[in-house]
Amino acid sequence: MIVVMKPGAPQQSISAVVERIEQLGLSAHLSSGEQRTIIGVVGTTPLPPTLDETLEVYEDVEQVMRVTKKYKLAGWDFHPQKTRIEVRDFEIGGEEVIVIAGPCSVESEEQTMETARAVKAAGAKILRGGAYKPRTSPYEFRGLGKKGLEILAAAREETGLAIITEVMTPSDVEQVFDYTDIFQIGARNCQNYFLLEEVGRTGKPVMLKRGMSMLIEEWLLAAEYVLAQNNPNVIFCERGIRTFENQTRNTFDIAAVPVVQRLSHLPIFVDPSHAAGKRPFVGPLALAGVAAGADGLMIEVHPNPDRALSDGQQSLTFEEFDDLMPRLAAVAQAVDRTVQTAEALAAV
Amino acid sequence: MIVVMKPGAPQQSISAVVERIEQLGLSAHLSSGEQRTIIGVVGTTPLPPTLDETLEVYEDVEQVMRVTKKYKLAGWDFHPQKTRIEVRDFEIGGEEVIVIAGPCSVESEEQTMETARAVKAAGAKILRGGAYKPRTSPYEFRGLGKKGLEILAAAREETGLAIITEVMTPSDVEQVFDYTDIFQIGARNCQNYFLLEEVGRTGKPVMLKRGMSMLIEEWLLAAEYVLAQNNPNVIFCERGIRTFENQTRNTFDIAAVPVVQRLSHLPIFVDPSHAAGKRPFVGPLALAGVAAGADGLMIEVHPNPDRALSDGQQSLTFEEFDDLMPRLAAVAQAVDRTVQTAEALAAV
Amino acid sequence: MIVVMKPGAPQQSISAVVERIEQLGLSAHLSSGEQRTIIGVVGTTPLPPTLDETLEVYEDVEQVMRVTKKYKLAGWDFHPQKTRIEVRDFEIGGEEVIVIAGPCSVESEEQTMETARAVKAAGAKILRGGAYKPRTSPYEFRGLGKKGLEILAAAREETGLAIITEVMTPSDVEQVFDYTDIFQIGARNCQNYFLLEEVGRTGKPVMLKRGMSMLIEEWLLAAEYVLAQNNPNVIFCERGIRTFENQTRNTFDIAAVPVVQRLSHLPIFVDPSHAAGKRPFVGPLALAGVAAGADGLMIEVHPNPDRALSDGQQSLTFEEFDDLMPRLAAVAQAVDRTVQTAEALAAV
Amino acid sequence: MIVVMKPGAPQQSISAVVERIEQLGLSAHLSSGEQRTIIGVVGTTPLPPTLDETLEVYEDVEQVMRVTKKYKLAGWDFHPQKTRIEVRDFEIGGEEVIVIAGPCSVESEEQTMETARAVKAAGAKILRGGAYKPRTSPYEFRGLGKKGLEILAAAREETGLAIITEVMTPSDVEQVFDYTDIFQIGARNCQNYFLLEEVGRTGKPVMLKRGMSMLIEEWLLAAEYVLAQNNPNVIFCERGIRTFENQTRNTFDIAAVPVVQRLSHLPIFVDPSHAAGKRPFVGPLALAGVAAGADGLMIEVHPNPDRALSDGQQSLTFEEFDDLMPRLAAVAQAVDRTVQTAEALAAV
Repeated sequence: MIVVMKPGAPQQSISAVVERIEQLGLSAHLSSGEQRTIIGVVGTTPLPPTLDETLEVYEDVEQVMRVTKKYKLAGWDFHPQKTRIEVRDFEIGGEEVIVIAGPCSVESEEQTMETARAVKAAGAKILRGGAYKPRTSPYEFRGLGKKGLEILAAAREETGLAIITEVMTPSDVEQVFDYTDIFQIGARNCQNYFLLEEVGRTGKPVMLKRGMSMLIEEWLLAAEYVLAQNNPNVIFCERGIRTFENQTRNTFDIAAVPVVQRLSHLPIFVDPSHAAGKRPFVGPLALAGVAAGADGLMIEVHPNPDRALSDGQQSLTFEEFDDLMPRLAAVAQAVDRTVQTAEALAAV
Repeated sequence: MIVVMKPGAPQQSISAVVERIEQLGLSAHLSSGEQRTIIGVVGTTPLPPTLDETLEVYEDVEQVMRVTKKYKLAGWDFHPQKTRIEVRDFEIGGEEVIVIAGPCSVESEEQTMETARAVKAAGAKILRGGAYKPRTSPYEFRGLGKKGLEILAAAREETGLAIITEVMTPSDVEQVFDYTDIFQIGARNCQNYFLLEEVGRTGKPVMLKRGMSMLIEEWLLAAEYVLAQNNPNVIFCERGIRTFENQTRNTFDIAAVPVVQRLSHLPIFVDPSHAAGKRPFVGPLALAGVAAGADGLMIEVHPNPDRALSDGQQSLTFEEFDDLMPRLAAVAQAVDRTVQTAEALAAV
Repeated sequence: MIVVMKPGAPQQSISAVVERIEQLGLSAHLSSGEQRTIIGVVGTTPLPPTLDETLEVYEDVEQVMRVTKKYKLAGWDFHPQKTRIEVRDFEIGGEEVIVIAGPCSVESEEQTMETARAVKAAGAKILRGGAYKPRTSPYEFRGLGKKGLEILAAAREETGLAIITEVMTPSDVEQVFDYTDIFQIGARNCQNYFLLEEVGRTGKPVMLKRGMSMLIEEWLLAAEYVLAQNNPNVIFCERGIRTFENQTRNTFDIAAVPVVQRLSHLPIFVDPSHAAGKRPFVGPLALAGVAAGADGLMIEVHPNPDRALSDGQQSLTFEEFDDLMPRLAAVAQAVDRTVQTAEALAAV
Repeated sequence: MIVVMKPGAPQQSISAVVERIEQLGLSAHLSSGEQRTIIGVVGTTPLPPTLDETLEVYEDVEQVMRVTKKYKLAGWDFHPQKTRIEVRDFEIGGEEVIVIAGPCSVESEEQTMETARAVKAAGAKILRGGAYKPRTSPYEFRGLGKKGLEILAAAREETGLAIITEVMTPSDVEQVFDYTDIFQIGARNCQNYFLLEEVGRTGKPVMLKRGMSMLIEEWLLAAEYVLAQNNPNVIFCERGIRTFENQTRNTFDIAAVPVVQRLSHLPIFVDPSHAAGKRPFVGPLALAGVAAGADGLMIEVHPNPDRALSDGQQSLTFEEFDDLMPRLAAVAQAVDRTVQTAEALAAV
């Protein structure tokens, strides 16, 4: 960390900063220029995360600049290889772009089974479906709970798809653990730290959706909560951020894909359904995600979107999904990745 | 709810919408103009919250317009009087603008006691202090936990101040309940619905801080989670929203005060400290909050902000707080409200 | 337009609204439901653009809903075919994804010529280069002016590339007209209506960059200013919007591509350079743009970005651009479009 | 400026940066720590505004930190006294909070005269009114032009009020100069640099409204364009920024008042009308602006807002304005400022 003093800062102000640094068990290295003094802060262990704020308020301090990152486990510095996460018989973070598909909510056994078969046939590797649903209003459908988890497990049993489902509160983690392959942490819970630590402790893969107004740096720090529990299996999922534009439900921050990949070794997925919020835009955003280098996609698919209990307006029909998969595969090939398609499955 | 069909929509499309409305147990009233048909949806109970999205995806539907509000308990329609909440020997939501003050975190008994005495003497009615702290990074100070709650209770015992402290997860609600007068739900937990319901069930007052990117409508719906547990004691607290501007920590949405007061009977406070993020701006924002009609203020005060374990850069010193209180009282008087000051206390 | 009155609105309030509508030469159609009256507004010509705001303030009006769009020339309703714009020997808006490349600013004849040859060889169709530069600070390089235009024209002469350059103020339009093939209107001037009308009157193609905080609807209305001058040759260019995220210079709103294509017949380009703001992210965003269906790309290329007088940090080197073009072509092919490459040029 | 090299950066990378700095006529001061080298950049004149971006792209550069500000004339460093601007018989930037009031657009002589008399009687010092109106759509009322300017001048003649009106394009500056006391630059033109320089050259006071997504730093730099023409008479006006919240037309960034006052010696006004966008919120925001320390207010007032050709929904009636002024004066007094009221006028 570097502390820049104001021009002509008196010795007394400089000493106060140095004293504080040393009280914290760190060393201060002074560099006195013609105009101003600059103090370098060095420690043998990571610097306290709020040290910059601590020093910023001192008299005659002009600016404090952090030159090391606040996160450590999520970054490349101590983990120079891209993380690959094994789930059942495949791998997340490798050459294959993994497709997660399924309904927003598990509504019934029939709806879920039917969807599982359809998305499996089209090439998806993971089935999504909410058993516990966070809803902005208390008067909306909140999911089937345990019954929903059982339906998902049955769908896995039959189709061989892995499953991912959301967990919303620490006390549900144990139950969800018994069923799911991957925990999903929703955008509204992205900074629910108790929940992050609880899923971290299970060791199972955790998908962290980005919060609506979350800085990418904060997202990496949220991952740090999971990673710090010795659970290296974190997957990011960009699902759009909140901006002034209202033609889409959220603004799909496609740049998050290369930015996260530059800052972190962890895989990053994209969710074009929640970003778009409207069916006709899901396809173009999904294709863009693959072109930008995403490690996977999460797409809402429903047997009858007009009758869906949630998110119908952004769910693809089976036909639309069938049509999209080979187009995703073509773009994947253009950027030296693969997407599994019905055709490839048939060829096996 | 009003469904506007596209110009020249065929009878078949219109019938499909009508059929769906009736399947949901609602009635459809058609109004056929020269160019287009408009369908009014009427029900005896509140309409399903996602009905607009459900109908929007039908063939030939141009737009769906909700004409009733999604929230009901928070609005004026069924509660035409402003809510007043009794806390110890005073009232929130009345003529007096209530001042909450104290450190970001409870760091020690000495720091807390000293602050409690100082803010009490200056006119504050409620002591704030975090025992459980949400932190963006897992490597930061997370609060003293139960020990912190005990310190707060001791400060109340001595000074007579009420106390408010944050609860972060449902399993802590019982413990925090034993100590606090008011539960604080932080910005990161504003849509943690299990937590909202859990504090709702206790019946104790709940202060809901606004999420960083929360629409005011979503905020009212979050309150609805608490209110629906038969707990009418909800207080809003505007603490700034996240925007592109970086001179302040957050952008203080001062208009939230009159907007919430127009939409809801519940009291609204402002937190100029988190909005400003820097000490010199706390005073002007606090004064603005009172002028705009806020029912209360929450201000961070610390005996030695430079040494604070969190938020030091936005905490006022005792002297700054002493200086601010009479200015708040003067502005309050100018808008026909009151703020208790040291002078007033002395006069008793 | 539909005006929804409040439940139980008295006849007097309804009449006031009807009277106003009729005074404006429009007709009002009443539909009285059990709870509320709805008034449909119909006119033989387009409704006044602010009619909704006009009526919203009337007593007992609950909501006003516009059911026709504010823009007409930019929309599909009266122009059911995609616009194709001829520029020299090629077409914008067709199957080919057109690549614009070149330096941010024209700095010298050598720099511009060298770049023109390099991007031409790699497959670009249009050369970009600023002769007049808008700068946030008055102390920065503001372009070579007329000399810059002459250099661009010379580069066109030699390479056969079309040229695009920014015009910043109405009085420069005539001069820039003498040199450029396409006018560029920058993000800061996107609502400079005199300038829009002035370039509109020339009949030459106009590229409208999106303003930093411009709603897509406002963008279409800005195009309307040009189109209303009988100039049908408008091209949109998404270059990122301003949000809270700071890892990129702007947030690339990739969804603008399918959204604009759904609302308008006009072509839309993307500018990944200004969106990214940093070189390593330009490639992924460019690929995403093509995958999402953009009709063209605008990419900053400089012979020596480290020495560029502006935007060096986001400009590609010749090698990076050479490397990107075949990857763009591969993605284009995957979505049934084409991009011209060096290989294709060589094959001619 | 301070350049921080990556840990272990080779000598070659360091030399490249130093060489570039020296080529630019600046000096480089190296400070080599245990882990990294830090380079201080010093010049005798202001550093090039884009120097940070120039150096950021060099090999092995980790971060570049600017320690001097980009603006100079707007800041306190070379102008340690608050700017006061004389307009007719009063002063902007002094103890009195100056109130500007009037219609959005000059619609007719009668409407303007009537308003001028009413706002004068209530205590306003300046009459506002648009003769040239920027409109999002080309199909809206765009003002009376020269006729509008004549009406404003006539109103000044009769009432003694100063006048302010918007100028939208450089070629109109001369004409508007002949009539107005203060030029208004609208939010859409805040970075129209030719216009800023043109009004700068006139020497008359210029009010700079903040752009919808303008950083405060960019605002100060826009002022710099005017100031650099030897025109010291710049007034800022905060009118709300664009965010995700839609209950108000814009988000009133009240903190801009103390932030600008800390960074600059220039006066800052607030425009609660455009921020609120709805009449009931104008009063609370105006009161908040005075409490936060604004040097003035700009408020839309119309004899018959329901019939206004623009912005009717946010214009106060005469009665509402009459009622607001003494409340503004009361708050002003509470913060040791004054606002002129009808009562004070009567007492003269």
